[in-house]
Amino acid sequence: MADVFDKCRSWETHRIFKSAGLYPFAPPVEELLSPGEARIHGRPVIMAASNDYLGLSADPRVREAARKAIAEHGTSCSGSRLANGTYVLHLELEERLAAFLHREAALALSTGYQTNLAVSALLGQDDVVLTDQDNHASLRDAVRLGGAVERVFRHNDTKHLEWLLSDTPPGSGVLIVTEGVFSMAGDMCDLPRIAELARQHGARLMLDCAHDLGVLGADGRGVPELSGLESSVDLIMTTFSKSLASLGGALAGEAEVIDYIRHWASPAVFSASMTPASVAAALKALELVEAEPERRRLVMENAARLRDGLLGLGYEVGRSPTPVVPVHVGDFMTCLRLWRALFDAGVFTGAVIHPAVQHGRELIRISATAAHTEAQLDRIIGAFAEAGTAVGVIGPQGMTR
Amino acid sequence: MADVFDKCRSWETHRIFKSAGLYPFAPPVEELLSPGEARIHGRPVIMAASNDYLGLSADPRVREAARKAIAEHGTSCSGSRLANGTYVLHLELEERLAAFLHREAALALSTGYQTNLAVSALLGQDDVVLTDQDNHASLRDAVRLGGAVERVFRHNDTKHLEWLLSDTPPGSGVLIVTEGVFSMAGDMCDLPRIAELARQHGARLMLDCAHDLGVLGADGRGVPELSGLESSVDLIMTTFSKSLASLGGALAGEAEVIDYIRHWASPAVFSASMTPASVAAALKALELVEAEPERRRLVMENAARLRDGLLGLGYEVGRSPTPVVPVHVGDFMTCLRLWRALFDAGVFTGAVIHPAVQHGRELIRISATAAHTEAQLDRIIGAFAEAGTAVGVIGPQGMTR
Repeated sequence: MADVFDKCRSWETHRIFKSAGLYPFAPPVEELLSPGEARIHGRPVIMAASNDYLGLSADPRVREAARKAIAEHGTSCSGSRLANGTYVLHLELEERLAAFLHREAALALSTGYQTNLAVSALLGQDDVVLTDQDNHASLRDAVRLGGAVERVFRHNDTKHLEWLLSDTPPGSGVLIVTEGVFSMAGDMCDLPRIAELARQHGARLMLDCAHDLGVLGADGRGVPELSGLESSVDLIMTTFSKSLASLGGALAGEAEVIDYIRHWASPAVFSASMTPASVAAALKALELVEAEPERRRLVMENAARLRDGLLGLGYEVGRSPTPVVPVHVGDFMTCLRLWRALFDAGVFTGAVIHPAVQHGRELIRISATAAHTEAQLDRIIGAFAEAGTAVGVIGPQGMTR
Repeated sequence: MADVFDKCRSWETHRIFKSAGLYPFAPPVEELLSPGEARIHGRPVIMAASNDYLGLSADPRVREAARKAIAEHGTSCSGSRLANGTYVLHLELEERLAAFLHREAALALSTGYQTNLAVSALLGQDDVVLTDQDNHASLRDAVRLGGAVERVFRHNDTKHLEWLLSDTPPGSGVLIVTEGVFSMAGDMCDLPRIAELARQHGARLMLDCAHDLGVLGADGRGVPELSGLESSVDLIMTTFSKSLASLGGALAGEAEVIDYIRHWASPAVFSASMTPASVAAALKALELVEAEPERRRLVMENAARLRDGLLGLGYEVGRSPTPVVPVHVGDFMTCLRLWRALFDAGVFTGAVIHPAVQHGRELIRISATAAHTEAQLDRIIGAFAEAGTAVGVIGPQGMTR
């Protein structure tokens, strides 16, 4: 008989990284020194890899709301939403979020991953999901769990999407799934064309707005608002672990659809509910998203400063106006070496390698937050100058590879 | 073209419940009045459905640890464990938990559901998972996500398990998955026989100890400790949302296996990490599990008092010595009516219906905690006397159905 643990023995890649000093994962944060700076391995490091886009995780008002919720309701709800784990706080968050997004209803779950997975309840063997190649893993897992047919279209390739739509068996329910802002490369979906195709073909459209909610659109409602196409999106997903300074996620849409997911999605029914602290933090952060639009301006300005600085150094940088700034490297070992050199230069970035992106599309992902100071942004750019030269990714005349 | 939302329209069962006043789900908790009592719909209700077995969610030391973590680290880690979401706190929790469970390593994830789902990383198409019929939905979802062959054995039926083991194709990796204490019926798995079968057939054994960790065994290490069979279990799963007064879960086992799951399980890699507050709460609760063994004695005494009281009233009650006390009803409408009558009598219980249990096995689930007072326990029993008579489930001579 074989051993299900065998696959864990033969996997040695990360040990090779580690022995070469090139392991880029999970350096443990010892302390947050300021919203944009942490102590890691005993020394201060600029955080250039956080998804706390609006800088609210460190906001004293958000912290106080969470602390108050613990004092009033304890540290755990000790049960699932349908059993004993629904507090008035959860309903308040759902109602506020639905109102903010101009939707009939919202359902808040304990993680963003599980929130996407809950879409599996809408899917059956006769349904087809047309999904962007760069969609988050949780969306792929949802299709698999739901047992639907998954058809992947090339990243943001609406011709390919159109072809797949025309090739869908009649009688199938069709759900198009894409992201407002793609998590790794920071670019936006072509919502105008995708929404048009969905309408033409009678397909439903779901948008994962994990990285754009709070940040894009005049009022922070993400790419749908920015594109003026909110009514074309049937189901909106967002997370609380990015701009909303918490942990969890939500689906928002028609009341009947949300109610169905609430009762039938396994990740919704069979999981403990969000802690009081996380609900309160998300609620307060949502209030600040609405009350302090200048945070959106700040994070976009900071992202532009990073992009411009890196372009000036000769890096190949994504130019989409979002907080996520991808620095394309395209080679596995170079990506790890650059990550390490940046870390040694005092800047914590994200090394994005397979399976987070396809082979050959490796990148260093940095992200701006509203809390970064100009000095911190300049230190990030300075570290890229130093590290890129040392690793040989950029030269005096710009990017050399 | 069909519509993926159609299934949400045709589903009206819960509206029928609601209009009949028999909807048993998610009455919103307004405030916790004491560890065992909450205000719901404006009036005090005894909480008889919580999984806070040791009563630690309301413990001032656990609350203070969570509040302190928010002050020091903020309300969110704003990223996944492999990226920017690993804090020294997470490593401390994993090390303490591994040491507590006498395992080489542990991996902490953001929900218990996701923790079980992460086992999917160990599974491939050539693997067979032998899984108890009553296992938690998250374990079934893990097999589906992993793409392994699932073979379900009748609940705790080791003859059936033995037959399935002997019928497994040679060359397959085999994982037996069961639970220490089953979540709904509160009974324990037959670990001695299952461990023996696993050894005889060269299969791996995973045990979900969500409901027994902290509670069973002299030191709180659950059913494996209670059975003296800790070394026979290859992979232990537990949650933080029950005895550990938090939200999240962990897998514990061999370092190589845990390390593999950490790097390759989609629910581990592609999800934001536990909040600092939840990590700190679980850490402090774990310390109290070790320091205050009297909590285990208390919760078991309280469960025995509930069981004895309900048996005395003529109810058909599970007799397993665990904190979960199932009151078997076996009929859908009677279950809902009893739940409602208990609620009206001031006691919040859990109505367990399909898909949480199979049709015909409907039950009212109550659970004892170490924080219940004798007066609260007697009020629970009193409510069962009143409600059971009103609904006709028990009569003067005992249970009549």
